[in-house]
Amino acid sequence: MIPTIEWHGQQIRMIDQRKLPSKIEWHICKGYKDVIKAIEKMVIRGAPAIGVAAAMGMAIGARAIHAKTTAAFIARFKEIGEEMVHARPTAVNLRWAVERMRGLAEGMADHPLDEIKAFLRQESEKILAEDIENNRKMGMHGQGLIPKGATVLTHCNAGSLATGGYGTALGVIRAAHEKGKKIQVIADETRPWLQGLRLTAFELMEDGIPVSVIADNAAGYLMRQKKVDLVITGADRIAANGDVANKIGTYQVAVLAKTHNIPFYVAAPLSTIDSTIKNGDMIPVEQRGPEEIYRFGKLQIGPSGVMALNPAFDITPAKYVSAIITEKGVIRPPFKKGIENLLDDRDLSG
Amino acid sequence: MIPTIEWHGQQIRMIDQRKLPSKIEWHICKGYKDVIKAIEKMVIRGAPAIGVAAAMGMAIGARAIHAKTTAAFIARFKEIGEEMVHARPTAVNLRWAVERMRGLAEGMADHPLDEIKAFLRQESEKILAEDIENNRKMGMHGQGLIPKGATVLTHCNAGSLATGGYGTALGVIRAAHEKGKKIQVIADETRPWLQGLRLTAFELMEDGIPVSVIADNAAGYLMRQKKVDLVITGADRIAANGDVANKIGTYQVAVLAKTHNIPFYVAAPLSTIDSTIKNGDMIPVEQRGPEEIYRFGKLQIGPSGVMALNPAFDITPAKYVSAIITEKGVIRPPFKKGIENLLDDRDLSG
Repeated sequence: MIPTIEWHGQQIRMIDQRKLPSKIEWHICKGYKDVIKAIEKMVIRGAPAIGVAAAMGMAIGARAIHAKTTAAFIARFKEIGEEMVHARPTAVNLRWAVERMRGLAEGMADHPLDEIKAFLRQESEKILAEDIENNRKMGMHGQGLIPKGATVLTHCNAGSLATGGYGTALGVIRAAHEKGKKIQVIADETRPWLQGLRLTAFELMEDGIPVSVIADNAAGYLMRQKKVDLVITGADRIAANGDVANKIGTYQVAVLAKTHNIPFYVAAPLSTIDSTIKNGDMIPVEQRGPEEIYRFGKLQIGPSGVMALNPAFDITPAKYVSAIITEKGVIRPPFKKGIENLLDDRDLSG
Repeated sequence: MIPTIEWHGQQIRMIDQRKLPSKIEWHICKGYKDVIKAIEKMVIRGAPAIGVAAAMGMAIGARAIHAKTTAAFIARFKEIGEEMVHARPTAVNLRWAVERMRGLAEGMADHPLDEIKAFLRQESEKILAEDIENNRKMGMHGQGLIPKGATVLTHCNAGSLATGGYGTALGVIRAAHEKGKKIQVIADETRPWLQGLRLTAFELMEDGIPVSVIADNAAGYLMRQKKVDLVITGADRIAANGDVANKIGTYQVAVLAKTHNIPFYVAAPLSTIDSTIKNGDMIPVEQRGPEEIYRFGKLQIGPSGVMALNPAFDITPAKYVSAIITEKGVIRPPFKKGIENLLDDRDLSG
């Protein structure tokens, strides 16, 4: 599998996900503003991958700071973090990564600047490595939920490309496949960006996992035909009560799963949990431009001047979620208590 | 509004709906096989429009029959009908139109062939005119269900372009607009053919009715945000119990409407009701090629060799339908009785 993002000398390079699968092309970031732009423009996407990109972006930003004192350095570093956090509003991993980097810098305030800068770069590499490791753990915990021979429906791309590597939802699917469970996948194409068709199908085909793509509007039909055994998606932010923000369309897949008595699982690292937020209604939902709906590449497909609504995410209330799969294990309802327990554990072990 | 289909001298011409809205182009049919091909390839689509096209196609087919006896003529005419009926399997209007034309020919068996042929052409014109008239009546009956200022969600295109003119679901919307109700429309883009984006938005914008397009996967989010007051769609076939076959995605919109306590209405002429079929599970659902999912025009957008499932329709059980709007009035549940009553009425008056 091609890496999602990596250091390349003094630069960051990431696969331009807007061009997949027809072109595999590196996108180079030389400064932190390039990283912000790459996140905004969806060169890189997926909550955990955005977190990794933000950490690397902070490190590259730190390197370029010319400050006479550590205090001045940290003040400027915080400003960069503020800019970075606003690149996209929904995925909380962005803020999580920025805060982790800021915390490290502040904790090293009595070290020489060059040392802080070097540690920040190392920390970004550590965040990348941990992310992959967490995904493997999620896979290990989550694959137990997938019966042999099951057909799994997934929405958007919560795969290797959405993370440092291996994937959250697709990590669980990969782990079940590696166990020899002979599963197959139905991938919602996921308009308007078609991450399911372009990225999920591409990743799974590379791994030899059978996958069929469907239009987003066919999920209900297939569930009613008993062609779907379970659903797994990723998450962009999970509130303290277990409400889940994820790619637009996740909510209606969850409602349909409930209607058809099909389990609906969410796989996400603990860094996706935002315990400062009581419930999902408080999660900001990014509204993107209408041209993503009425244009295809440079080709206009809708009538001139057409209006479009383009929410990029939606909120799935916890009552639709059968379980949340994390690197520390599987959380079952009631989620509030389960999340608290795991986060306490995270604080102790972190 | 541009006409969907019309006689043009000895030929049939129809707007090529695959090219809208960027190109307004006539597609010419010189023989009945051209009409079959146009239906198969979706040059023309929408159950009532397919019915009109089939009737015209039968008339053009009749004209070309060289037969020595009326019996030979009718035998050949029936064969053409058999071919026509198989152009697409789900919309019952196709069979309805073919049977009406065949019935006319058989009823005229003692007339000269030229006279039969002329009557068949007239009958096809009558079917077109009746379709438009029926849509206006549906609009009149249905608009009472739309409150002032309502936001109406619709799926696919059940508009002027799906019919002889005016539209079924969009006919109801047009009638409410003409009453000055200041409504607005949310149009599901309706993958893979994007009839909502390309046709519904185009039609409504021409009429000055406010419309916003959404990805199919955003309907649930908007319903949860209380941005949708009611749903109206068309139908391709309605079973005796009120189960509705319609464009893929209709079923899940209906489930979502139910979940959010939003009324879900279906607008269709009586010719869409198939009283020979007890329930929706007996309606054949057309499965179309995977390339409609992974290609956009000639551009391949998915990975090479990707598999895709592409059901063109789905079945919405009657329990999700709040009412069926027909040219004879609004049918409320229980639909079986209501449909029987209206069809009895149809037999008497027709």
